[in-house]
Amino acid sequence: MSRFLNSRLKTFDPYIPGEQPTDTAYIKLNTNESPYPPPPGVVKAINESEVNKLNLYPNPDASGLIDKIAGFYSVGAENIVVGNGSDELLAFAFQAFFEKGVIFPDITYGFYPVYAKLYDVPYTQARLRDDLTIGIDDYIDAGKNIVIANPNAPTGTALSQEEIEKIVKSNPNQLVLIDEAYIDFGGVSAIPLTKNYDNLLVIHTYSKARSMAGARLAYAIANEAIISDLKMMKYSFNPYNVNRLTQAAGIAALDEAKYYEKNNNEIIKTREYTAAQLKNLGFEMTGSKANFLFAKHPYIGGEELYIKLKSKGILIRHWDIERIKNYVRITIGTKEQMEKLLKAVTEIVRGTEA
Amino acid sequence: MSRFLNSRLKTFDPYIPGEQPTDTAYIKLNTNESPYPPPPGVVKAINESEVNKLNLYPNPDASGLIDKIAGFYSVGAENIVVGNGSDELLAFAFQAFFEKGVIFPDITYGFYPVYAKLYDVPYTQARLRDDLTIGIDDYIDAGKNIVIANPNAPTGTALSQEEIEKIVKSNPNQLVLIDEAYIDFGGVSAIPLTKNYDNLLVIHTYSKARSMAGARLAYAIANEAIISDLKMMKYSFNPYNVNRLTQAAGIAALDEAKYYEKNNNEIIKTREYTAAQLKNLGFEMTGSKANFLFAKHPYIGGEELYIKLKSKGILIRHWDIERIKNYVRITIGTKEQMEKLLKAVTEIVRGTEA
Repeated sequence: MSRFLNSRLKTFDPYIPGEQPTDTAYIKLNTNESPYPPPPGVVKAINESEVNKLNLYPNPDASGLIDKIAGFYSVGAENIVVGNGSDELLAFAFQAFFEKGVIFPDITYGFYPVYAKLYDVPYTQARLRDDLTIGIDDYIDAGKNIVIANPNAPTGTALSQEEIEKIVKSNPNQLVLIDEAYIDFGGVSAIPLTKNYDNLLVIHTYSKARSMAGARLAYAIANEAIISDLKMMKYSFNPYNVNRLTQAAGIAALDEAKYYEKNNNEIIKTREYTAAQLKNLGFEMTGSKANFLFAKHPYIGGEELYIKLKSKGILIRHWDIERIKNYVRITIGTKEQMEKLLKAVTEIVRGTEA
Repeated sequence: MSRFLNSRLKTFDPYIPGEQPTDTAYIKLNTNESPYPPPPGVVKAINESEVNKLNLYPNPDASGLIDKIAGFYSVGAENIVVGNGSDELLAFAFQAFFEKGVIFPDITYGFYPVYAKLYDVPYTQARLRDDLTIGIDDYIDAGKNIVIANPNAPTGTALSQEEIEKIVKSNPNQLVLIDEAYIDFGGVSAIPLTKNYDNLLVIHTYSKARSMAGARLAYAIANEAIISDLKMMKYSFNPYNVNRLTQAAGIAALDEAKYYEKNNNEIIKTREYTAAQLKNLGFEMTGSKANFLFAKHPYIGGEELYIKLKSKGILIRHWDIERIKNYVRITIGTKEQMEKLLKAVTEIVRGTEA
């Protein structure tokens, strides 16, 4: 820490992302990336002719990309803003809208409390039910702005579109932010509801189901007034926030629905297969609709499992948080990767039980 | 504006970047981009094999890139943090360090007052001298944190390394941020001084002299303690702020010193040629050490010149700010582009004088 740091930041704890080892020896099941490369259209879009234009700034309005997203979701271009990954858009929303307070689950994406503290937002954490699902009653007529990851992370459980609508409808004077990073693995998006409710903001990322975590791209969809506020935040922070090649890739990706559907179906199938196998080994799991499983074993602590798998060359994620310390989060990779995981877990479980 | 926007943002004015028309019919001399494409090494670095890894997150520490920058400037890796363009790093600095106040010139990069307002930083604007140069006495023992663009924008005038050192030395308990976006067109960098002064922060961008505005990349160099604070800001906002391809391009670019030196020398030569020709046409100019000229004509207002050049297919920049409203800023393009500019300006000057 320098002697110049502002007083209120002196005790500030940043978000800690999952390990990103620079050697590639590990089977990486710890940061919810897609195991599949980007589609051929994306690879084609990032070509020498595009790279040769890198001396020029990107289009700050990203209008080509925004028009394409608008067509894909049947919303207007005025209903969309793009960001350098969903973290940037979440940060803009926390900074712009939540001065009167916000509520989100006690167990959810770890960045929400970080943003609340960073932007001096009063926040309340609603306790997940004992089965780690979201109790929607906590969000009905909440009297506060609301942030919900749907499916939630790291638990993977999803609310239905009807449940989301109930929450949005019962809080007409609060902004409801639904973070749908994992929506394409079995959830139902709230995007169509943005046409009927001017207090609903939905954020999507290209990082998971669209195999583009390395490109940094996300978008927010809402009523025009909310989007115009988020655009003001973007233009007050970093007008050129999405680089040229990522804009080109983002456009091309939207022509690849079949490629993604096939991959996402494969991930769902592999998730269900892995879940069944883990159950046979004695694991309990939340019902995940995301590209990961959240699992605990009666005899092996979460940290122990994480350490033992790491020593076997497999990275998963564990949090040192009381309520979930017995759990681990396992990203769904390819079938082959999950077979290796299951083999390693079986050895660990048998070793412990012996 | 939505009804959810925080009260203090309701009267907020964002930064307005230069026009970025999506058609390419214009000769673009309005946003200080390099007229030269990125070097062959950068084009080679962004290849199919790299693009195929876009499903994986970038290295949040950007350690490969940071090691390369450290080698280039003979500083330690612990003295560097990278950002999604220098705007992001400037924003982090304004948010992290300036709660007790900051001083910068009245005429300078337009984002400084935007960041000051966004992060509730008390700020003072020191009036440039009548010749639009920075009066360094305003910054000696200033009693406030300091931000200086060197060379300054949009005036292009530069302070010497000795003058920067005087300022840094006389303010041992204030952070001095030197924004060196345009340093490679004739200025002398303060980076070597960061070894001797723990209150100096220097920010560089790849957007100008390195022909990579479209890739979004910048870095800050300072004492380890300051950098560790900026890293905390990055990890509290967007850990994966620099995408994979930009990290690869940023590494490759540092092996291309000769390519850049040739281009930058050409830009300097073209700047001096253009300045001499404009002088012959009656223009007055600040002595620019950047890749642009800041010029005014006794008989033609800045806005008029901007509009007339635009109608002739040439974009330059003009600000509706009282003190500089007679000026225009003209980015230095290729010799051919500047010949076209000079021909158009000649026609306009003769037409007006007739």
